[in-house]
Amino acid sequence: MKTQHAALLTDLYQLTMLQAYHREGMSGTATFELFVRKIPPNRNFLIAAGLEQLVEFLEDFEFSDEECEWLGTLDYFTPEFIDHLSKLRFTGDVYAIPEGTVFFQNEPIVRVTAPIAEAQIIETRLINIVQLQTMIASKAARSALAAPGKLLVDFGLRRAHGAEAGLMAARAAYLAGFDGTSNVLAGKLFDIPVYGTMAHSYIMAHDDEVEAFERFAESLPGNVLLLIDTYDTLEAARKVVALAPRLAERNIPIKGVRLDSGDMAELAKGVRSILDEGGLTECSIFASGDLDEHELLRMLEAGAPIDGFGVGTRLTTSQDMPYLNCAYKLQEYAGRPRRKRSKGKENWPGRKQVYRRYDDEGHMLHDVMAEESESQIEGEPLLRQVMAKGKRVGAQETLAVMRERLRGQLQQLPPALKAIEDGAAYTVLISDGLQRLVERMDSAGL
Amino acid sequence: MKTQHAALLTDLYQLTMLQAYHREGMSGTATFELFVRKIPPNRNFLIAAGLEQLVEFLEDFEFSDEECEWLGTLDYFTPEFIDHLSKLRFTGDVYAIPEGTVFFQNEPIVRVTAPIAEAQIIETRLINIVQLQTMIASKAARSALAAPGKLLVDFGLRRAHGAEAGLMAARAAYLAGFDGTSNVLAGKLFDIPVYGTMAHSYIMAHDDEVEAFERFAESLPGNVLLLIDTYDTLEAARKVVALAPRLAERNIPIKGVRLDSGDMAELAKGVRSILDEGGLTECSIFASGDLDEHELLRMLEAGAPIDGFGVGTRLTTSQDMPYLNCAYKLQEYAGRPRRKRSKGKENWPGRKQVYRRYDDEGHMLHDVMAEESESQIEGEPLLRQVMAKGKRVGAQETLAVMRERLRGQLQQLPPALKAIEDGAAYTVLISDGLQRLVERMDSAGL
Repeated sequence: MKTQHAALLTDLYQLTMLQAYHREGMSGTATFELFVRKIPPNRNFLIAAGLEQLVEFLEDFEFSDEECEWLGTLDYFTPEFIDHLSKLRFTGDVYAIPEGTVFFQNEPIVRVTAPIAEAQIIETRLINIVQLQTMIASKAARSALAAPGKLLVDFGLRRAHGAEAGLMAARAAYLAGFDGTSNVLAGKLFDIPVYGTMAHSYIMAHDDEVEAFERFAESLPGNVLLLIDTYDTLEAARKVVALAPRLAERNIPIKGVRLDSGDMAELAKGVRSILDEGGLTECSIFASGDLDEHELLRMLEAGAPIDGFGVGTRLTTSQDMPYLNCAYKLQEYAGRPRRKRSKGKENWPGRKQVYRRYDDEGHMLHDVMAEESESQIEGEPLLRQVMAKGKRVGAQETLAVMRERLRGQLQQLPPALKAIEDGAAYTVLISDGLQRLVERMDSAGL
Repeated sequence: MKTQHAALLTDLYQLTMLQAYHREGMSGTATFELFVRKIPPNRNFLIAAGLEQLVEFLEDFEFSDEECEWLGTLDYFTPEFIDHLSKLRFTGDVYAIPEGTVFFQNEPIVRVTAPIAEAQIIETRLINIVQLQTMIASKAARSALAAPGKLLVDFGLRRAHGAEAGLMAARAAYLAGFDGTSNVLAGKLFDIPVYGTMAHSYIMAHDDEVEAFERFAESLPGNVLLLIDTYDTLEAARKVVALAPRLAERNIPIKGVRLDSGDMAELAKGVRSILDEGGLTECSIFASGDLDEHELLRMLEAGAPIDGFGVGTRLTTSQDMPYLNCAYKLQEYAGRPRRKRSKGKENWPGRKQVYRRYDDEGHMLHDVMAEESESQIEGEPLLRQVMAKGKRVGAQETLAVMRERLRGQLQQLPPALKAIEDGAAYTVLISDGLQRLVERMDSAGL
């Protein structure tokens, strides 16, 4: 994936700033933090994800000869600066909230401390990597909360925004509690279970629907899942019942049927009756098509006997909120905290840690955002060191570990925050030390 | 970009269907068409884009040995089928609406005719490639219509959905009339002009705002664009005026300033006055931050003296409509038209062409969708052959040609369709032949 992690995949201003820093001899240590300014509407919490891909990016960070040569063709950069750039590597320290952890507004999820050029040049791709999976995991967890115990499969590759979006969405959804994906390459790369049935085109290419069902069953006798909405869903369910004995003679069980259009809550009831009356009580019903957490909740509350869902486009595009209001901001340079005061975009300055406190029942009570240097702050610190001097600290976490972490976190979530339709807010307190720091900086006009 | 065009970047069901076709000996010729079912809200037309990347994908289509080996580890596929898969290439014909062409609901934008396995296996990535750029180009053209004559730059890489999304969004926006991008790699790959200034962090890393301005100007004397909203925008504009003579002595002109927060329409007026009174009448004002076509229109209608805009997140995520309701459907197999009748998802069957008609003033009048085989349909045919037997037909088009095509198309657009805030619909007629075909199929229950 050379192009994906190309150092040149960045904004031009990162390079013009680096040239200025280089010319000025500014090489002091900077701390930047990535945070989300606001929890978006229709979300009660967010889930950190994408850290693994970030660490890989930082470990490999390097401008190739070809990239440097091309930069030389622009009017912007001196040969001396390009030579400097060719030697640039990421040698900083990184702290982060582990993947699969719930977090809230303004909390730093990634904190980078490095010579300013290194901490700056990685900004664009760092946001690009972490935002995507964090957004998708946060969306996917809502489907998992809406449909506990149901099989959930990511179907969204085709309408994801490109290849990487499809791959990372599959990973983030699995991290957030999905059972698998239709995305084969994601299965291979991340060891995620892959699922699939057939498309309408398969049915349509045959002259007869039953013939299509039977041929498919013969080709994949261990995984017979039949798509039954191409022409008439209930009629097709009856055809499935009629076909079943013929397949049973050859020891081919029909494992399930898939609905993909119409009023699926109603259709599922009709299909369930037909299957049950036909003796196919073990045959499951799977639904797909324009689904999201709201639709899952609606169908299940309507008593739809659906066993699993393929959630596609609205998941992988995070349709109701296709970006997070996130920023990667300079918090400290050369030992001094820094604060931006652009209207509506003020930041909490300094190098920070987040502490989480729990009530007696083990539910999250509130978080406290504090200066890293403050001592005696009660609570569980959320940011952990993941890189030291440009190298990964500790072993790579598996997706299984992250999934398990999130499962635990969702149990600790205040019940009101688990609601799909009603928003609830969580308190993030600002420590006394951090408040005093801001007051000091504001009164000094810094 | 090996992973990006991996054949395994597909849905599992494509492979299970292929195995069934293989087992059944179904190798007849199929025609599939990609179309958008509905023009989304807030769009009056769509723009075809992404065809070049599709042709590259199809020309290179191949399962690698490693991919085949991994497929063998799943429970789904026989060794014999995997061997068959390893030899599969795309050998079909492709017709498409050229990039930069305006199109409407239900019109086929890509038409693939190939042995059914080949036409089927490419579905997922074909949609994935074409949807993204078509969606972004269609969104970007609206900014170009809202702000004619203004400099428009794509700033959206950081919050695009991954690497490929950022690259393709830069390409699609440029195709649709943007002047450039901040995305350096997109500049290199697609020969798009790159733009950039500085970030707030650069200002904040200096102890003094003026010092930051001056050092930056010295480092990039030919392109001095200063970000002036880090602390107080109007105050910073006055600092720019005070700094200008000092830089002028060294022959360094201040080309522009950038606003990134606050009420930018109002601030721009204040900044313009300060700059003009300070003699900096040539210094341009550039605005960025949460912009889209609505905001551009609002600011320009309010008389904001802004010369250029950086449009970011809302463009590259197509925030108000992050997917198109598009489908790639089987229209014909083994010489017979096919029709899906799933509720709300019926298709116009058969192998089709689209004809465009114009009024006396050269404006688009309406389109006609017809069977390809129908003769004597008046109008300009929109679909052109782009691949024959798996190979590209003719030379690769340049982005410059596509941009020029779109410019012409936007001039031919009915004026009502150019409106940003008010929707207007365009008529797509169905030819008599196509209507008769549907009636025949429906009455025969096909």
